Amino acid sequence: AAALEAKVSGFSKKVWKIGADDPRKPAYGVKVGIALTLVSLFYYVRPLYDGVGGNAVWAIMTVVLVFEYTVGGSMYKGLNRLAGTMSGAALALGMHWIASKSGEKLEPFVASGSVILLAATATFSRFIPTVKARFDYGVTVFVMTYSFVAVSGYRVEDLAALVLDRIATIAIGVIICLGVCALICPVWAGQELNLLTARNMEKLAYAVEGCIEDYFAEPSVKRAEAAAKSEGYKSVLGSKASEDSQANLARWEPPHGRFGFGHPYDQYTKVAAAMRHCAYCVESLSSCAGASSRERAPRLLGDACTRVAARCARVLKEASTCVATMTTSRTLGFAVADFNTAVHQLQTDLGNLPFKLAEKTAETSLAEAMQLFTVALLLIEIAASIEGVVHAVGTLATLARF
Amino acid sequence: AAALEAKVSGFSKKVWKIGADDPRKPAYGVKVGIALTLVSLFYYVRPLYDGVGGNAVWAIMTVVLVFEYTVGGSMYKGLNRLAGTMSGAALALGMHWIASKSGEKLEPFVASGSVILLAATATFSRFIPTVKARFDYGVTVFVMTYSFVAVSGYRVEDLAALVLDRIATIAIGVIICLGVCALICPVWAGQELNLLTARNMEKLAYAVEGCIEDYFAEPSVKRAEAAAKSEGYKSVLGSKASEDSQANLARWEPPHGRFGFGHPYDQYTKVAAAMRHCAYCVESLSSCAGASSRERAPRLLGDACTRVAARCARVLKEASTCVATMTTSRTLGFAVADFNTAVHQLQTDLGNLPFKLAEKTAETSLAEAMQLFTVALLLIEIAASIEGVVHAVGTLATLARF
Repeated sequence: AAALEAKVSGFSKKVWKIGADDPRKPAYGVKVGIALTLVSLFYYVRPLYDGVGGNAVWAIMTVVLVFEYTVGGSMYKGLNRLAGTMSGAALALGMHWIASKSGEKLEPFVASGSVILLAATATFSRFIPTVKARFDYGVTVFVMTYSFVAVSGYRVEDLAALVLDRIATIAIGVIICLGVCALICPVWAGQELNLLTARNMEKLAYAVEGCIEDYFAEPSVKRAEAAAKSEGYKSVLGSKASEDSQANLARWEPPHGRFGFGHPYDQYTKVAAAMRHCAYCVESLSSCAGASSRERAPRLLGDACTRVAARCARVLKEASTCVATMTTSRTLGFAVADFNTAVHQLQTDLGNLPFKLAEKTAETSLAEAMQLFTVALLLIEIAASIEGVVHAVGTLATLARF
Repeated sequence: AAALEAKVSGFSKKVWKIGADDPRKPAYGVKVGIALTLVSLFYYVRPLYDGVGGNAVWAIMTVVLVFEYTVGGSMYKGLNRLAGTMSGAALALGMHWIASKSGEKLEPFVASGSVILLAATATFSRFIPTVKARFDYGVTVFVMTYSFVAVSGYRVEDLAALVLDRIATIAIGVIICLGVCALICPVWAGQELNLLTARNMEKLAYAVEGCIEDYFAEPSVKRAEAAAKSEGYKSVLGSKASEDSQANLARWEPPHGRFGFGHPYDQYTKVAAAMRHCAYCVESLSSCAGASSRERAPRLLGDACTRVAARCARVLKEASTCVATMTTSRTLGFAVADFNTAVHQLQTDLGNLPFKLAEKTAETSLAEAMQLFTVALLLIEIAASIEGVVHAVGTLATLARF
């Protein structure tokens, strides 16, 4: 019983933490509840019920299915649902007219033949990448509406009225849903994407710095702190999926705040790709640097490498601030200049290394020297990839008119 | 007009290619059509219609919403839909009974209060990772059913009959859907996952080989072929999302063929993580190796590196065959032994490198020598990560009783 109690309390703590970390998540739950209550008014208030009737079910379903966490997600689903319903219904009405001309006997065959044909084509079209990215939900709704209307046509007298009712209730649902989603504490996919990019860039900065500090630190000072910092690059490696989906949804959002019409959301995915390239190198660096069980800190190149890493981190942090605040800063330019000097210095030092090594062969083992070479070269590679990140951020700033 | 024509023909070629590359994709479309036709029989055939009536709509919707490409996907959605509908309906009936005791005036307030409360809680619960992974769709259906039944209770007389009808039609839809999905050319998520893992492992093998061959090749023989081969690791980097979702869906599948009950689908994601670690190193290797604009091939270490790369590739290919055919092979053991010898040889050669370099300082520039060191060390790192892959495959073989 005690074990169960501990488990339950652990679980509820975890759940509480999810809500406390981001209060917009419980707020999302409340927003869904509010939208559902607004929709259910159509059931409770007599005059409204007389207008819509039992079809209010469709409005409730629409709210539950369309209401997403971000405004972009709700817009995507809402517009897809409307477009899918209308096109599916229109096509089905046309088909019904043709089928009804073909006589009572043939009608079911014409109708179900058209259902198979359209469902198969539409379902297959979901494998086309553009359709998948933008209209996946719309195609599902299209197939659903088409088959529903086409099949109902056989038993229902006034098909057009049924279709219009359905479209009207779905429109009511979509409007209530979008209204609540965008007006009460809205969560914009574009802003989330912007923040995620800025935050990942900062994490990358700490990771580059942490890795190098960790490598050149005295092993006795086993800095758990630096090691923990350097883990941040993993979240850069793992956030491709959420970046892609947010960029996709942000496109559906109306202009808001600094995110104007035609905001270059695509460019964010390019910045993210550049960051990921950098993170791959950090991963190699941390596994190369971490492999050794050194007894003492390497003496050579320590200054130059630490300086490059610090400058790399500074450039990334400046770029992150630029993205987060959506401004261009002069400091970024200075930071890049400093950083280039440091990289050049490291390259020169690296060229002189063999002579220095020759002087102290007694102190430095060969394996250590090789590892040092690799760490320095990977750091130079990281510096090159950071230039790519800065370039991508520059393009973003130009396109978005920061 | 000519431009438009070219665009249309280009697009249709692309669509044709999607279908031709994997005939199961158009087959999926046809399967959806068949399932919809079977469901619509409930509308067309008089005795069936008398049994179900206008509620057949729910069966149609269920088929469209539940029918996924893989059996696992359909199982996940179907079972979630059934469970969500039943639990939502049961709770709503209970709530309705309580609300009806509270009198005509209060009833709407009790009902909509409970809707807000439950919708908010359930929606928030979707942020809990376990719920998100396994019951996301079920929670949506639960909220939908609960609000639908709770709200309908105000206007509908025989609520229990409505609920039972709804559950029955949804069950019909789910059963037809799962039947068609699992019996007509089924696509198993587990098999797809197995195949994807094996294929990615093979691509990784070619990438390791290609990178090193490319680096040590005479620049005049600019081998576009090797470069193209070495691109394969990118698909390893990019397939995390699909692996995770397939592993998630495969858990819902009934035992089939060699995929027994409790098949260790989780272990596949671990194999994939090990492969991704290797791919990060390959990415660093290819950007380090590709950075140089050499005028001639490096002479030193060429043999040892090429041998290690070839052995790495062989080990990966053997492991890939093991996964693809689901057998253990003795050849893998031999390949690993060979590979270890080659890595040791490379490490010895690397130790002797400085003496060799001293002999030929005229021929080899410093920058070249440093790059050579880095390439060799990254290759050793890759070899270490391949050991991780082999280990993960071994665990998989044990757990799945290959």
